Amino acid sequence: MDKLSSLAKFKASCPFLGRTKTSTLRTLCTSSSPRYPSLSKLTEKATECPVMGPALQLRSHQMVAGYASVAGNAEFNKIHQQKGVFPVPTGSADMQKCPHAAKALAAARMAEDLAKAKEKKAKAAEAARAPSTSKAAAAAPAACPFHAESASKAAKVGFDYEQFYVNELEKKHQDASYRYFNNINRMASKFPIAHTGNPKDEVEVWCANDYLGMGNNPVVLETMHRTLDTYGHGAGGTRNIAGNTGMHLALEEELASLHRKPSALVFSSCYVANDATLATLGSKLPGCVYFSDSMNHASMIQGMRHSNAKRVIFKHNDLEDLEAKLQQYPKETPKIIAFESVYSMCGSIGPIKEICDLAEQYGALTFLDEVHAVGLYGPRGAGVAEHLDWQAHKRAGQSPEPIKGSVMDRIDIITGTLGKAYGAIGGYIAGSTDFVDMIRSYASGFIFTTSLPPTNMAGARASIVYQKEYLGDRQLKQLNVRALKSKFTALDIPVVPGPSHIVPVLVGDAALARAASDTLLADHGVYVQAINYPTVARGEERLRFTVTPGHNVEQIARLATAVDTVFTQLSIPRASEWAARGGRAGVGIPDAKPVEPIWSDEHLGITDGTAPRQLHAGEKRHIDPRAVRVVRERFEDLLGPVETPTPAKAAVPQGMTMPAPPVMHAPTPIAAAA
Amino acid sequence: MDKLSSLAKFKASCPFLGRTKTSTLRTLCTSSSPRYPSLSKLTEKATECPVMGPALQLRSHQMVAGYASVAGNAEFNKIHQQKGVFPVPTGSADMQKCPHAAKALAAARMAEDLAKAKEKKAKAAEAARAPSTSKAAAAAPAACPFHAESASKAAKVGFDYEQFYVNELEKKHQDASYRYFNNINRMASKFPIAHTGNPKDEVEVWCANDYLGMGNNPVVLETMHRTLDTYGHGAGGTRNIAGNTGMHLALEEELASLHRKPSALVFSSCYVANDATLATLGSKLPGCVYFSDSMNHASMIQGMRHSNAKRVIFKHNDLEDLEAKLQQYPKETPKIIAFESVYSMCGSIGPIKEICDLAEQYGALTFLDEVHAVGLYGPRGAGVAEHLDWQAHKRAGQSPEPIKGSVMDRIDIITGTLGKAYGAIGGYIAGSTDFVDMIRSYASGFIFTTSLPPTNMAGARASIVYQKEYLGDRQLKQLNVRALKSKFTALDIPVVPGPSHIVPVLVGDAALARAASDTLLADHGVYVQAINYPTVARGEERLRFTVTPGHNVEQIARLATAVDTVFTQLSIPRASEWAARGGRAGVGIPDAKPVEPIWSDEHLGITDGTAPRQLHAGEKRHIDPRAVRVVRERFEDLLGPVETPTPAKAAVPQGMTMPAPPVMHAPTPIAAAA
Repeated sequence: MDKLSSLAKFKASCPFLGRTKTSTLRTLCTSSSPRYPSLSKLTEKATECPVMGPALQLRSHQMVAGYASVAGNAEFNKIHQQKGVFPVPTGSADMQKCPHAAKALAAARMAEDLAKAKEKKAKAAEAARAPSTSKAAAAAPAACPFHAESASKAAKVGFDYEQFYVNELEKKHQDASYRYFNNINRMASKFPIAHTGNPKDEVEVWCANDYLGMGNNPVVLETMHRTLDTYGHGAGGTRNIAGNTGMHLALEEELASLHRKPSALVFSSCYVANDATLATLGSKLPGCVYFSDSMNHASMIQGMRHSNAKRVIFKHNDLEDLEAKLQQYPKETPKIIAFESVYSMCGSIGPIKEICDLAEQYGALTFLDEVHAVGLYGPRGAGVAEHLDWQAHKRAGQSPEPIKGSVMDRIDIITGTLGKAYGAIGGYIAGSTDFVDMIRSYASGFIFTTSLPPTNMAGARASIVYQKEYLGDRQLKQLNVRALKSKFTALDIPVVPGPSHIVPVLVGDAALARAASDTLLADHGVYVQAINYPTVARGEERLRFTVTPGHNVEQIARLATAVDTVFTQLSIPRASEWAARGGRAGVGIPDAKPVEPIWSDEHLGITDGTAPRQLHAGEKRHIDPRAVRVVRERFEDLLGPVETPTPAKAAVPQGMTMPAPPVMHAPTPIAAAA
Repeated sequence: MDKLSSLAKFKASCPFLGRTKTSTLRTLCTSSSPRYPSLSKLTEKATECPVMGPALQLRSHQMVAGYASVAGNAEFNKIHQQKGVFPVPTGSADMQKCPHAAKALAAARMAEDLAKAKEKKAKAAEAARAPSTSKAAAAAPAACPFHAESASKAAKVGFDYEQFYVNELEKKHQDASYRYFNNINRMASKFPIAHTGNPKDEVEVWCANDYLGMGNNPVVLETMHRTLDTYGHGAGGTRNIAGNTGMHLALEEELASLHRKPSALVFSSCYVANDATLATLGSKLPGCVYFSDSMNHASMIQGMRHSNAKRVIFKHNDLEDLEAKLQQYPKETPKIIAFESVYSMCGSIGPIKEICDLAEQYGALTFLDEVHAVGLYGPRGAGVAEHLDWQAHKRAGQSPEPIKGSVMDRIDIITGTLGKAYGAIGGYIAGSTDFVDMIRSYASGFIFTTSLPPTNMAGARASIVYQKEYLGDRQLKQLNVRALKSKFTALDIPVVPGPSHIVPVLVGDAALARAASDTLLADHGVYVQAINYPTVARGEERLRFTVTPGHNVEQIARLATAVDTVFTQLSIPRASEWAARGGRAGVGIPDAKPVEPIWSDEHLGITDGTAPRQLHAGEKRHIDPRAVRVVRERFEDLLGPVETPTPAKAAVPQGMTMPAPPVMHAPTPIAAAA
């Protein structure tokens, strides 16, 4: 009612609104502009309006940092520039060159977020009081009249739920932790390129966790196409009721064998795997105490909380602190040390072997999250625990048997994901038969949920098998990581030091980090998300780069230049400045020991000359034919052999026999079935 | 060590073990026999052995109900029968004809589970003490020597974790709630047929939640093939970092529009959606009290628990009890009434409208789980809330605007799944813009997890659009439900009465329910899972049948006959017997009001003669060409138009131009890329 009457007023005074359907307006104001994701389509549209256009521009200037955000301002200017409707303003891009701009920018961003939230609150309150005279809504240029919908339920008796939501969101705006999602569509045929909301607008992706590009590996896609044709889409039930397929069982066998453990179990995600496993273990083990690394992932923290077991937090990677805390409990008390191998936001690596020593000494279980390591470390991609005994695991080949006394064998519980290096979806645990069976039998988050589709399970398994058989992607990734880190270092760009594949670049300020991310996207076609509080500590905000084997030499060089430009433009402190200030987040710490990467020259094949070559522009990645063959063989029992085109068929002129790429399958003859 | 020395002993005394690799043995004993899922491959193998074969048979007879389970015994006999190695014994199948057999069977099953668990415990303890003289392991025929692995960690200091797992599993065996998963592979081209672990062994699926067969709908699969080629497999990140694609955004827009709500948000599963949403809401709303239906799903219970908010449970569907409980709290106290539309295990339907009335009166939010209803009820498949205002929603067509005062509009929060009627994966919430934004901004289970693959999101959306446009599948499903229920009723088979699509058949005993399920699978090729405690109350154990539009008249008739036969064979009480005993679980209750299905003759098209016709054997389901066209149009922005073969191309002889079905796409030219 209120909403409709506000709208009626708008419609009466504006020929555009008057002519446009209500449903269209809703779509325009709730979906973001394809090219300028921080603006709504309605705002983009409004720049064309003779009344709203100049008003928007004026407001943009007044706010220094732009209408909706830095990107918003930059994008907003671009629209004008492209359309030639208004003269190009001396907008924030110029201001950013000023030495004080960075601080001003940050201040403006905070002020703006604050103002927006307040305005929203006022609007909602006013709408609740007198919906048809909503001045606040009218005063806000390009504000969406449909958001007044929020207030319509306020008329209910009792507690004002909608106002409560608004207040909670306001907190996010106030501490700059409100998240705007970018629309990023990673294209299989152009990896690592994605398009934004507009399919023609392409950007380079530098922060995805498809660490090896396995999401577009041809034998993975081939396996998935075949599985989709054979078994359709959804699993159709829980694992207990109709949703337990050969693809699930084979994947779990593959995972157990990967980690040389007797058993493995797949969950909807590794978030669920960690949450469900830790919640179940901690609530069942009598008097259980968790010892949790202070940098552990949210999913582990949730799981431990949900268990209601006692949780003792030890300093990140600090063995002395851990031991001091373990000592405080009797040997008979069930204890679980929960930690990670690669910490994804700082790139540090846990002291796995030493934690196993402590666990044995104090009678604790070890729970190791290898989410950011599986597929990426070790001769078969089983993770850092495997990597630490490289030679032994290499010698053992693909045997599923444990290697007695190896680090991987000493870990009781390993959790991993299929959604990052394996380019798929889902998570898992691996461990002893009875442990896995116990979780399978008691964890509500495993039992009462639809199992993942067979197609995705097949794709994940194809990826695991391929990476078990082929080392080159892992090596090339790490070579690219080295290349990027050394380019950044040469440009005095502050890389947080670490032995892993993560390339965190310190910015040290939330608004600046977001501005850097926005500017890289808008001006350089580089997509890298800013990592702010609460994911990292305040003052340690950063850009987190991920490099894949698919990024070529030219892309790496261009990225380094782009980051350098944006650092200058936004006056972001350099490595030498952090050093002068005494260091922060591991950058510029005086007398710091240099960190060695855990991929040695020997692992990389540099020593013996077998290292893969970096790609150059236009070159295609190497697809290992032997690994492809192994993958295909592995699926023969369920999918049959792959029919490769016979020479006769292949000789038929293209376009007559084969559908044009990238659609690799013939159109489904649906009409015939109708 | 212990394990290996036990094995060495076995290997020395048996030529089979001596010749077989350790890794092969492990695989044999940890994977189930394809045809006989309750036996391990090693047990199947052991029946061929001149020493073990007769020993196994003897033991099988001694235990009455068979070696591993009823299915185990039946299957075990079958192996002998097929191989002709030993004479067919007068096994449990004969015994089951005896009137006392059912009780004896149940007793034997319990005794067996108990014995197994005890044996396992003893074995583990003994292995820990003196691994090389493990008598228990030697005494247990076909027991797996590798399970002794469990005990190897017992040597650690402090708490004995492995023994703890064994004890927890023993509890499950003791109360017959230990779950054996059947290996069921639902074939897209033969819906509703699946194969078991052996691809040649086909069974009919009667319990999947792919309620409409949308998991194999051709336009869904076509859309997924195209998306897979365009965007590859995994999303590659969280929604905030590189994992937010146009496919996700479009799906959420589609879902919001389906429920005529301003906003929707997709989660890994509806388990996660319920858990994360209820946990976040309840922990944020100050002093929040949950009012929870006693039959609510595990995911809702977990979410409410995780919130640490107060939880008041009201009697299932009991408005008086709910109101009495609401009255005890002040109006200003934030309250959430959490309930479902269709309760999946009993098939009852919540009084949605009346609960909305109470919520408005007492100032509570309504949280409605439509997991077993979306896709299945209402003119567009939006669920029961839509179904209740059929005419209004039908008139409004595909407009996303809310219908003021309709039941769906009055519900504050709707949750649904993509994994059941839509045949896909994932779950979602729909509600007001600020509510959804608040959950998006605070729910850990949403924020810190890899988003679902674009391909699955596209498949889900194709399915939703198709079902929005085409009513026939929903109608035909309900016609088949009516047909099956009336066949069961005519045969005095006790159907738990209910107004929904769920067909629960009361068995009333855990062991009997499992025996019925096992026998239907082994003897009739009918797969229906037994539903036991804790999913249903003790004494209310049941078989839960789901009928799809893809089940034909002959299959329905055969199923009724098969169930009738098994009821007689296992002496399971009939409807009239429950009535004579005063009724149970809604069956045979004296003077019970007959329950009307919520799909009326008018909804089904019976009144006006537009009802779809049931399928007969060999007939293909109807694929609606108009709905297919709408789906294809909806994806044109991201995937482009579907190229249908031109007449010229279509005229080229088959086998030359098109790959043979069911593989609908040409093999990926991987070799060329290598």
